[in-house]
Amino acid sequence: MGLIVQKYGGSSVADAESIKRVAKRITEARRAGDDVVVVVSAMGDTTDELIDLANDITPLPPSREMDILLTAGERISMSLLAMAIANLGVEAQSFTGQQAGVITDDSHGRARIIDVKASRIRQALDAGNVAIVAGFQGVTEHTNDVTTLGRGGSDTTAVALAAALDADVCEIYTDVDGVFTADPRIVPSARKLDRVTYEEMLDLAASGAKVLMLRCVEYARRNEVTIHVRSSFSGREGTLVTDEPAVAEGEGHMEQPIISGVAHDRSEAKVTVVGVPDVPGTAAQIFETVAAAEVNIDMIVQNVSVAQTGLTDISFTLPAVDGPRATAALKAVQEQVGFESLQFDDTIGKLSLVGAGMKSHPGVSARLFAALRDAGINIEMISTSEIRVSVVTRADQLDDAVRAVHTAFGLDSSEGEAVVYGGTGR
Amino acid sequence: MGLIVQKYGGSSVADAESIKRVAKRITEARRAGDDVVVVVSAMGDTTDELIDLANDITPLPPSREMDILLTAGERISMSLLAMAIANLGVEAQSFTGQQAGVITDDSHGRARIIDVKASRIRQALDAGNVAIVAGFQGVTEHTNDVTTLGRGGSDTTAVALAAALDADVCEIYTDVDGVFTADPRIVPSARKLDRVTYEEMLDLAASGAKVLMLRCVEYARRNEVTIHVRSSFSGREGTLVTDEPAVAEGEGHMEQPIISGVAHDRSEAKVTVVGVPDVPGTAAQIFETVAAAEVNIDMIVQNVSVAQTGLTDISFTLPAVDGPRATAALKAVQEQVGFESLQFDDTIGKLSLVGAGMKSHPGVSARLFAALRDAGINIEMISTSEIRVSVVTRADQLDDAVRAVHTAFGLDSSEGEAVVYGGTGR
Repeated sequence: MGLIVQKYGGSSVADAESIKRVAKRITEARRAGDDVVVVVSAMGDTTDELIDLANDITPLPPSREMDILLTAGERISMSLLAMAIANLGVEAQSFTGQQAGVITDDSHGRARIIDVKASRIRQALDAGNVAIVAGFQGVTEHTNDVTTLGRGGSDTTAVALAAALDADVCEIYTDVDGVFTADPRIVPSARKLDRVTYEEMLDLAASGAKVLMLRCVEYARRNEVTIHVRSSFSGREGTLVTDEPAVAEGEGHMEQPIISGVAHDRSEAKVTVVGVPDVPGTAAQIFETVAAAEVNIDMIVQNVSVAQTGLTDISFTLPAVDGPRATAALKAVQEQVGFESLQFDDTIGKLSLVGAGMKSHPGVSARLFAALRDAGINIEMISTSEIRVSVVTRADQLDDAVRAVHTAFGLDSSEGEAVVYGGTGR
Repeated sequence: MGLIVQKYGGSSVADAESIKRVAKRITEARRAGDDVVVVVSAMGDTTDELIDLANDITPLPPSREMDILLTAGERISMSLLAMAIANLGVEAQSFTGQQAGVITDDSHGRARIIDVKASRIRQALDAGNVAIVAGFQGVTEHTNDVTTLGRGGSDTTAVALAAALDADVCEIYTDVDGVFTADPRIVPSARKLDRVTYEEMLDLAASGAKVLMLRCVEYARRNEVTIHVRSSFSGREGTLVTDEPAVAEGEGHMEQPIISGVAHDRSEAKVTVVGVPDVPGTAAQIFETVAAAEVNIDMIVQNVSVAQTGLTDISFTLPAVDGPRATAALKAVQEQVGFESLQFDDTIGKLSLVGAGMKSHPGVSARLFAALRDAGINIEMISTSEIRVSVVTRADQLDDAVRAVHTAFGLDSSEGEAVVYGGTGR
């Protein structure tokens, strides 16, 4: 008999019928003999509706009150799910983040879990109950204030509970079958991955794959929690995220495949600082300014200096939504830094090739660039890490780029077996 | 500088506009120099909507989970209200029942407050904040489980906080101007009472006046909390509920008026047990049976025994909704008790005349009966207490009865000044 943590997102508990369907799946797991802890998000669009309500009241809701408001969503879904399970004859108890012992810092709206004191959950399991826990929320240690963990917070709650309870696996139920070699909406022949390493999943998440949030994967890696990403709409096996690399089929079962997948991201923009004096310290000034505006930058390219003028251009990418804040901050220091002008471009796309195997395989970048050249796609920026190569293209060429690269690295499924239900591995 | 507890019901915070209006009133009280604690109910129909959701899931929701579900309602209203107040430039913090220290027993769905540990509310007030507290909810002392207080629970929360904080007054905001001598929808000339005693208010509430719930008045009397019932839609003074009797105008200011008001109640039904053997112990058997079915009975009448047969009839009133349960329980013991048959009548009305002054004024009952006789209304049952006389009539004659009695006791306003907004003093 094992211990399973299951996490269901908002689309899996969107209405009474969905809640009953999820309840059935949970009772089956319980009746199979495992202890089951379930982490649940708010129903469907509840969180967005609560945000709209707050915006009707005030343009700047205090973050402490916003957190209290938003946690009402999980309170509703978790109690309804516990009722649905009880209705199927299995004992269930729901617990708020506080009752489940999810202790966080006091950064309202984006709190970080600092401890999980799961004694009440243990008690519930020992008494034979299924424990339903509100995702996305916690409580501060000393002031007992309610906090929320920000986007993707419920996944993190699930992984944190799995770590605290030493669960055998943390099952993240979603509306796709698992992690794919590319977004199946763009590449219909994309294949579901049976297994990826934490490192690959981190790079995929950082590169635009939305199936798991970065922080949740980080938490899992740090605490060695095995994640199983799978669909709540089917009984299929999904994708395991562990520290053991996958083995390539037909390659002697000892070598891992070079590439796990092709991720893409349309949410970034590019800022180019034009005519920057090419003297020591200028780049530092620019990026200190952007950092002070609390903008996270991603890729950076500095052109070779033009000898006659002593001037250069510096380009960097950042989340498009942070564009106005970054450019305003830079304009304020234009005279001091001495650059000529700023360009802002939010029609870019980013493609990333991720695979732990590329560490030991030179030539991956060259093959990537050749595939893009053959497809007639111009590369605007390049950045590489040990297990990832990213390039920036025009936004309207991104889909073609993803397909070309997916094919060039032999990722296409021969059977075209990818099954997509909606949200997908974007 | 004083301390005021204000309570706003669901209709006062039904939407964003209402919440902003209430916020304005609260900030005015705060800016006038008083410390302000606000108890708030769930917005409009939220509670009913949550109950419907639960019923979509299961016919028998576990009461612990039902309480967690329902408390989501106040969580939403209290955080939105705190935001609206902050938006007007006044510091505000919201608190759940647990955070406010409202400790209850573990009777989910109808918990009783056993203690209020208001240290966090005190801290918030000392820091200059308005404290917003979720009504209707508390937490069990040892298991930390969420409980709800049942119907009218928010009023009780407000009175309990006022007692714990030693507030100067507990203002209960509603959609009528205060407590009236009768329901103004039935008696347009009903007058607002400036003041009633706890005892009178208890009898009015027990007799069908819905403006305050019985348990809230009981709590106020036990802890000597002055209640001010007033409208959230106007600035008018409402009705004070205290231990000091009102003084009648123009009567030397030393004598209290005989009658405070005429309450009515259409929610009861009458059960008649026909042909009961008139031997010792039979009545006890009947009422033990009803009590075992957890039905509260109100009035009881036993006819004089008919000498020839040795049989009698026993009639009692009870909440109409409990009728099926009571009659089923009685039928089960019919043979054992030996009665002939059961009659159930849910077309009755109850009229109650309440006034502390009637203690020292004989003849009140006679005047009441005469007024009903003159109006052609038959009396089916009578019961009296020290400060109340109640009669049962046909339901369709109840309105006429109320008007006739209201006039007979000189309660009609000469100016017809009663202002009604909706819900009224039923």
